[in-house]
Amino acid sequence: MSAPKKVVLAYSGGLDTSIILKWLQTEYGCEVITFTADLGQGEELDPARKKAELLGIKPENIHIEDVREEFVRDFVFPMFRANAVYEGLYLLGTSIARPLISKRLVELAHEHGADAVAHGATGKGNDQVRFELAAYALDPAIKVIAPWREWNLSSRTKLLEFAEQNQIPIAKDKRGEAPFSVDANLLHTSSEGKVLEDPADMAPDYVFQRTVDPVTEAPDAPEYVEIGFERGDAVSINGEALSPATILTQLNELGRKHGIGRLDFVENRFVGMKSRGVYETPGGTILLEAHRGIEQITLDSGAGHLKDSIMPRYAELIYNGFWFSPEREALQALIDKTQEYVTGTVKLMLFKGAARTVARWSDYSLYSEAHVTFEEDAGAYDQKDAAGFIQLNALRLKLIATRNARVKK
Amino acid sequence: MSAPKKVVLAYSGGLDTSIILKWLQTEYGCEVITFTADLGQGEELDPARKKAELLGIKPENIHIEDVREEFVRDFVFPMFRANAVYEGLYLLGTSIARPLISKRLVELAHEHGADAVAHGATGKGNDQVRFELAAYALDPAIKVIAPWREWNLSSRTKLLEFAEQNQIPIAKDKRGEAPFSVDANLLHTSSEGKVLEDPADMAPDYVFQRTVDPVTEAPDAPEYVEIGFERGDAVSINGEALSPATILTQLNELGRKHGIGRLDFVENRFVGMKSRGVYETPGGTILLEAHRGIEQITLDSGAGHLKDSIMPRYAELIYNGFWFSPEREALQALIDKTQEYVTGTVKLMLFKGAARTVARWSDYSLYSEAHVTFEEDAGAYDQKDAAGFIQLNALRLKLIATRNARVKK
Amino acid sequence: MSAPKKVVLAYSGGLDTSIILKWLQTEYGCEVITFTADLGQGEELDPARKKAELLGIKPENIHIEDVREEFVRDFVFPMFRANAVYEGLYLLGTSIARPLISKRLVELAHEHGADAVAHGATGKGNDQVRFELAAYALDPAIKVIAPWREWNLSSRTKLLEFAEQNQIPIAKDKRGEAPFSVDANLLHTSSEGKVLEDPADMAPDYVFQRTVDPVTEAPDAPEYVEIGFERGDAVSINGEALSPATILTQLNELGRKHGIGRLDFVENRFVGMKSRGVYETPGGTILLEAHRGIEQITLDSGAGHLKDSIMPRYAELIYNGFWFSPEREALQALIDKTQEYVTGTVKLMLFKGAARTVARWSDYSLYSEAHVTFEEDAGAYDQKDAAGFIQLNALRLKLIATRNARVKK
Amino acid sequence: MSAPKKVVLAYSGGLDTSIILKWLQTEYGCEVITFTADLGQGEELDPARKKAELLGIKPENIHIEDVREEFVRDFVFPMFRANAVYEGLYLLGTSIARPLISKRLVELAHEHGADAVAHGATGKGNDQVRFELAAYALDPAIKVIAPWREWNLSSRTKLLEFAEQNQIPIAKDKRGEAPFSVDANLLHTSSEGKVLEDPADMAPDYVFQRTVDPVTEAPDAPEYVEIGFERGDAVSINGEALSPATILTQLNELGRKHGIGRLDFVENRFVGMKSRGVYETPGGTILLEAHRGIEQITLDSGAGHLKDSIMPRYAELIYNGFWFSPEREALQALIDKTQEYVTGTVKLMLFKGAARTVARWSDYSLYSEAHVTFEEDAGAYDQKDAAGFIQLNALRLKLIATRNARVKK
Repeated sequence: MSAPKKVVLAYSGGLDTSIILKWLQTEYGCEVITFTADLGQGEELDPARKKAELLGIKPENIHIEDVREEFVRDFVFPMFRANAVYEGLYLLGTSIARPLISKRLVELAHEHGADAVAHGATGKGNDQVRFELAAYALDPAIKVIAPWREWNLSSRTKLLEFAEQNQIPIAKDKRGEAPFSVDANLLHTSSEGKVLEDPADMAPDYVFQRTVDPVTEAPDAPEYVEIGFERGDAVSINGEALSPATILTQLNELGRKHGIGRLDFVENRFVGMKSRGVYETPGGTILLEAHRGIEQITLDSGAGHLKDSIMPRYAELIYNGFWFSPEREALQALIDKTQEYVTGTVKLMLFKGAARTVARWSDYSLYSEAHVTFEEDAGAYDQKDAAGFIQLNALRLKLIATRNARVKK
Repeated sequence: MSAPKKVVLAYSGGLDTSIILKWLQTEYGCEVITFTADLGQGEELDPARKKAELLGIKPENIHIEDVREEFVRDFVFPMFRANAVYEGLYLLGTSIARPLISKRLVELAHEHGADAVAHGATGKGNDQVRFELAAYALDPAIKVIAPWREWNLSSRTKLLEFAEQNQIPIAKDKRGEAPFSVDANLLHTSSEGKVLEDPADMAPDYVFQRTVDPVTEAPDAPEYVEIGFERGDAVSINGEALSPATILTQLNELGRKHGIGRLDFVENRFVGMKSRGVYETPGGTILLEAHRGIEQITLDSGAGHLKDSIMPRYAELIYNGFWFSPEREALQALIDKTQEYVTGTVKLMLFKGAARTVARWSDYSLYSEAHVTFEEDAGAYDQKDAAGFIQLNALRLKLIATRNARVKK
Repeated sequence: MSAPKKVVLAYSGGLDTSIILKWLQTEYGCEVITFTADLGQGEELDPARKKAELLGIKPENIHIEDVREEFVRDFVFPMFRANAVYEGLYLLGTSIARPLISKRLVELAHEHGADAVAHGATGKGNDQVRFELAAYALDPAIKVIAPWREWNLSSRTKLLEFAEQNQIPIAKDKRGEAPFSVDANLLHTSSEGKVLEDPADMAPDYVFQRTVDPVTEAPDAPEYVEIGFERGDAVSINGEALSPATILTQLNELGRKHGIGRLDFVENRFVGMKSRGVYETPGGTILLEAHRGIEQITLDSGAGHLKDSIMPRYAELIYNGFWFSPEREALQALIDKTQEYVTGTVKLMLFKGAARTVARWSDYSLYSEAHVTFEEDAGAYDQKDAAGFIQLNALRLKLIATRNARVKK
Repeated sequence: MSAPKKVVLAYSGGLDTSIILKWLQTEYGCEVITFTADLGQGEELDPARKKAELLGIKPENIHIEDVREEFVRDFVFPMFRANAVYEGLYLLGTSIARPLISKRLVELAHEHGADAVAHGATGKGNDQVRFELAAYALDPAIKVIAPWREWNLSSRTKLLEFAEQNQIPIAKDKRGEAPFSVDANLLHTSSEGKVLEDPADMAPDYVFQRTVDPVTEAPDAPEYVEIGFERGDAVSINGEALSPATILTQLNELGRKHGIGRLDFVENRFVGMKSRGVYETPGGTILLEAHRGIEQITLDSGAGHLKDSIMPRYAELIYNGFWFSPEREALQALIDKTQEYVTGTVKLMLFKGAARTVARWSDYSLYSEAHVTFEEDAGAYDQKDAAGFIQLNALRLKLIATRNARVKK
């Protein structure tokens, strides 16, 4: 790989990506363009501009963007149509944000005539894979620089030395090492590493940042919320039509208040090892429960079981970084096709750490009280049909049993 | 179908199956053998004996059995090895009990030289299918009588009239109609029908019978429990080795106390309609969470993702009544193979309606702190390997992007 | 079911459906509308009109239609995009025609204000299921009459008696029973029953009607043909653009000549029994091979393996009669999404019973000689990347091996 | 990776692995143990011993083994139980041999106290992955040396120079470059590269080495063969019980004679690129057809469709090198479970390039002429059952159609 001339860096404004910025300038002597995205991580982005300027980035090379609506509309919502969970439990909060960042990095590279993009993910995790697969899928000629895999700043001490040598300001609380590592966006906060590294130890209380403690801080009374859906996507809360990002923001606030969406989890990374993370996905946890609730009455079993059967593969693709791949897009076509009539309203109870569907209704409902009733059904259903249904379903089982009895003699 | 001469009836001792018993005697003039199983439904079974005698059943034709250990060991636990949930949420509490009952019905038919078995399931539900597919799979020549599909006792009034005409005692509380229908066993209680028939209406409080109200009755302090596993099955609670049924019984008590395992659900019946049920699966809900917890550290991603991908099919088979089928058995072989090393301990927090894994440890753990650590890893993992890993995973995506760019020109 | 007043009958003009026609008139006293479709079965349809008139059908109630283009374009081709084969080998020639017929029956019922449709399929086969599921999916209120399941004409003798009593002309060769039963359309000819009923007996030569004997009649020299594809569908033969039905017709002629597409097969019917059929699918066999050939260079592995994994389910749905179902449509959306770039040309060798891809090329090819070459590749591929790729793919296997060695001590 | 001290080399005796042998000695200064396996590739192995001795290998370090029975019994046959084909067509002849070689390399390493194994696969192909994943799965501490990824002998000229400098004898026909690359074992011969690199060019006749030309050389008369199966494995030919390797050898001879099993194929390599290969799998092609034939009558649809649905994943695992993985072993448990009754005999016609099942019979057959017959079936099957079967299968489709009509108003 020849040395890059211009690099678009995913820049948070924090110490680590500031060091990367400087390292790119010194190691490759290349021009750096910074991209800082507001994905709803809940941090001020203005300091990122100032810090970038301080590090010598030209104003026209500093990009700070609010991508929250795009994030929820084009990434989070399509994924929730699938009820995607990784390994049974994880709502993929980090995974789903990476392709959006890569997409903007590559777009900015094209705008600026840059030949490379750079990110601050380490060589042990999944994020490097997600960033890079997305970038290569969008521009096969782009270079991707992953300083953590390249440099020799292998200890905290070396990093701080480099920062000091290069006049990178170090916030006081960054002097010492953080007790764990955090990633956040509008969908979730993940915490991992350090104090969380032994999965036999309970996570300390201070790890949780985004939800109150359901035991000690959540209200003693349940709260009910009604979420409206259209074609599989949430469109309203308690009857008020809202934009995608606003919906997720409000559900996050509800979830935070009731301590909803905490997950202590050991997962299998794509790179081959297990890791333990603590995830907080307040709004997403409510949304998943609600989406399942609305599908219960609007989706038929054929489409529903098909979706369920491909969901693990779909979730795995997102987890592994294959958002921009033909197979994820083909699965999305399948999923989206099933959501045509997933429209209606779900009522949930939020209480001390859990969100539960308690009622649901829809003009698009397939639920037929006329058929299911224990009362007289006025001929909607002829119970005698069941006899034939069972006989033909049993036929092959009878033939097997007959055969087995015969050959065992 | 020629008229049966001897019938083994799944007999609860309640009004409905007593009417069926009498109806079999009068309609077919056949000898009736009763089978009453203690599946942990929490009812006294002695009255069933007395009632059967009262209805003229010979003592040697009355079978009352405690099958709880067999139920949990041979049906519930194998199913939980798969983390089976139907349509994302339902733990299959009713479905998994039916094949055991059919198995005993058929075995008793063979012992007594009976040519038929009978059950009290209606023609609208799944249970008729489950009972009958299991019976036919075990004895292809057996006759199955489903009075609800045959007789003309189509209203409550007619049933009561028939009971009175035939001197069948009617408990006072059976005079009026129950506000909903119940099925129970050691794994769960299900409630459906009547007041639950409109899925837009919240279930009334009195529907819940097996768990306290998490809002008003559950303790304000969390409780922690440690569940030990061997080869995928729970074997101990808080360090005490226990039999399968004892484990489920104790977990039920823990779950009941904390209001755990309530589910308000609209599902797709195998016979083609949607129905709404309220399920309470206190111990099972804890067990599922715990099993996932122990798999997190002892199962590798290859086996784990494979299991996840076939689970919906496996759950559907059980729901649809295909427990005794070659495909369920083949899937079980796969699942059991994956559980060889699923041994260890999970610690869960039980609190106000939810059970959550908070820690897990095992001599069989695949979790490697040496690999995942944010600290120096002493060469366990070479971050540079990730570059090659990503490059080859990206190669086809690059080739696609190159092709797409070429043909779009 | 109340008696139908007007019935649209799938009418071939043959003896059996003529008897059904008469039976509908006499049994139900209802008005009959006939629908005779040219699906490419290779029979004259004019006699059907005359026979219908003879049986008293009003001219405006007689519908004879050439639906070959619709058949191939909207049913056969979408199915071939999936490389659909049932149970590994069967190309679904009968299955795919039924929904089209049902669709037209229901449409004609709506035009004529008819309340029922009728078909001549027996109660043992799959076709009744396919006809009826399609009809109900398109009009849930339609009645479907299946005389073979209703009447008492249970023997050949009784059928002929009924025909004679009702002045239905009987062709001489229909007096005796045919030695086997046949279904044909543009995609295939199926033969089953009678002389074919014992799967241990080889099918007699005279069963084959649509292909020459590859041993004795096929040319001694191979023939080469080039098939052009666009977005997954065949669009040309040897460079000549042709309509869908014309393409299949020409491929049938090529296949016939070389004895291609014979299959002796025992399959599992949806109704629970096994049956043995002899299928001749000359053009379809060539088309399947060709479609696989063009996908080999234009489809990437992600999309291709996904398609392969859902194909058996898709084929099963078609075989079982669920063409008009949400899950078939969702799978179709997935499949169609993968075909966007399946454009190019395949060259096949046809010889004595087989069609084999021998070359393929496309502007949309993903094949990269630069990458795969044994020669110097000018940096397209860095072999050192493979080391990291393997190391990370091996990591979990190493962790497993380490664990297993540890616990076995 | 520290330098290896003792290496077990997969040694063919050919020029390339002789160069590797020498390179290992000179580059690493390590002791070399050679392993040469008779996998049925059809080459004399004695010269390999002499050549190894000539290159200075101690006699006790030279291992030449006939592993044909183990290969067929423990690798080929288990795979054929699954009807495994990669990407619809490829019978995995190379893929399935690699794990066996790695297994012996690792076992010999343990016997000799060697710390490394080495193979001659290049960095562009799948074989390196297969060799190495298998080795690491069997011994996580083993070192694997892949000289083609390490050395600088990047051209033919350099290789020959190295050979000459090191007194490695070069056969005359190895002076020039071979027109394509070959791998062979008892299951197949694969040819790729060079003259085959453009998939738009037909493969030249001289590529085919293992089968006669079906057009010009195969007999003009068909030949019939009967293959006996027990529990899914072939056990006899024409009634004669034979060992696994003998069966495959005899089927190879039959296939060779009739030109059976040629495949011109473009596949997706695990490392991300497409490649074109020409495969000859004469016996395997017959065996696959026969296995499908016996399953047709002995396997029920539930088990059969389940097998079909997981087969692509199973084949992909073998192709990618994951033979020794928990997920392949779990799938194998499933597959083996289905084969319990796959016992019986298949008769095939072999003719000019194709093998076709023409008859099959078994004491374990599930085929029931009593049920399927067009004649009177003596009550085996009640056609009226089909009505109820269809009604309940249609119910959800009717509910969907009703809903869709309602909401479209």
